[in-house]
Amino acid sequence: MKITNEDILKFEKFYRVNFVNSLAGFKSANLIGTISKDEKTNLAIFSSIIHVGANPPAIGFLMRPISVERHTYVNIKETKYFTINHINSDILKKAHQTSARYPKDVSEFDACGFTPEYSDSIKAPYVKESLIKIGCRYVEEHEIKFNGTIFIVGEIFEVILPDSIIGEDGFVDIEKVNTITISGLDTYHETKRIARLSYAKPDIEPKEL
Amino acid sequence: MKITNEDILKFEKFYRVNFVNSLAGFKSANLIGTISKDEKTNLAIFSSIIHVGANPPAIGFLMRPISVERHTYVNIKETKYFTINHINSDILKKAHQTSARYPKDVSEFDACGFTPEYSDSIKAPYVKESLIKIGCRYVEEHEIKFNGTIFIVGEIFEVILPDSIIGEDGFVDIEKVNTITISGLDTYHETKRIARLSYAKPDIEPKEL
Repeated sequence: MKITNEDILKFEKFYRVNFVNSLAGFKSANLIGTISKDEKTNLAIFSSIIHVGANPPAIGFLMRPISVERHTYVNIKETKYFTINHINSDILKKAHQTSARYPKDVSEFDACGFTPEYSDSIKAPYVKESLIKIGCRYVEEHEIKFNGTIFIVGEIFEVILPDSIIGEDGFVDIEKVNTITISGLDTYHETKRIARLSYAKPDIEPKEL
Repeated sequence: MKITNEDILKFEKFYRVNFVNSLAGFKSANLIGTISKDEKTNLAIFSSIIHVGANPPAIGFLMRPISVERHTYVNIKETKYFTINHINSDILKKAHQTSARYPKDVSEFDACGFTPEYSDSIKAPYVKESLIKIGCRYVEEHEIKFNGTIFIVGEIFEVILPDSIIGEDGFVDIEKVNTITISGLDTYHETKRIARLSYAKPDIEPKEL
């Protein structure tokens, strides 16, 4: 069936949110950890984190408009650092719970049962229960004029992960530590590898690696 | 183990590309279809497509720097429309093959074995073999100064999908049509739903829906 822009605008609000959030495909599942100037920690689930570049290493994510107070945004602007922590199947329910609207003086680390962990190089807290952790330095932001969302870019400052999941060619097997993926607003999936394919060249069929 | 920014910069090029591309987590798997002013079609695989907003419905993706010629980018700027087509497990190898560097006068539709399909409302070609298709109108772009990549935003103009996968609350079950997900540069995964969780509220444990 065909659904037009006009149809979508006429949908009931939650129907529309569920529908449109499903369209882009599977999404990354991460917790972003931050700390305020006065050392209050914050933790929030994000499904919009994407790869930005390898050299220099960079990562980005989209934030909803800051017309309502966004603790993650305020903390990043205050301290310039944030952490990205993969969500695995063991911590899925607690990770989902960080999306509840806690007041600013409540840390989602405490409220949702996560343990903050610190490296000696950056101030922002990592999530101990996560197995792949990325420390980032705020680099720049872009406001999407169409709807007020903000694309934030961070330089990857350090990565903490088990060395057993790094392949000989640098590929990190995130499935091995049960990193999950999200569809729509609230649906979580585990994965199973189908294939790894060779670098594509015109007129040569890709091989399974 | 801890890997620092300096370590990453010292990695061999392909090791670094594999490593950093794995870090953000699982990625969406889509083909972007475009057409040039003189009606040459183009098709390219993208793993950077993310949800931007539901009202009005919008979607975005990150493109690599345009210092080398990017047919997708040129076509979008010329005609203002593009299509996003979910990659399912049946068309995975052909979809991967679109990443080979074909000359501008070769259409990846022909070279990789896809069928262009047109709606009466937009010029850009859909992929017949894809089961979830999104027609988009170019809205704006932002150049990431840090590395010259470009974040492109499109308004969702129309969506073509089987009505059997749309739930009562608008959730689209993309797993039902075997939409796949990507990790790293070249690794493809199928998914299995673990849980759908209720809207999170402070001090109430999320329920499975």
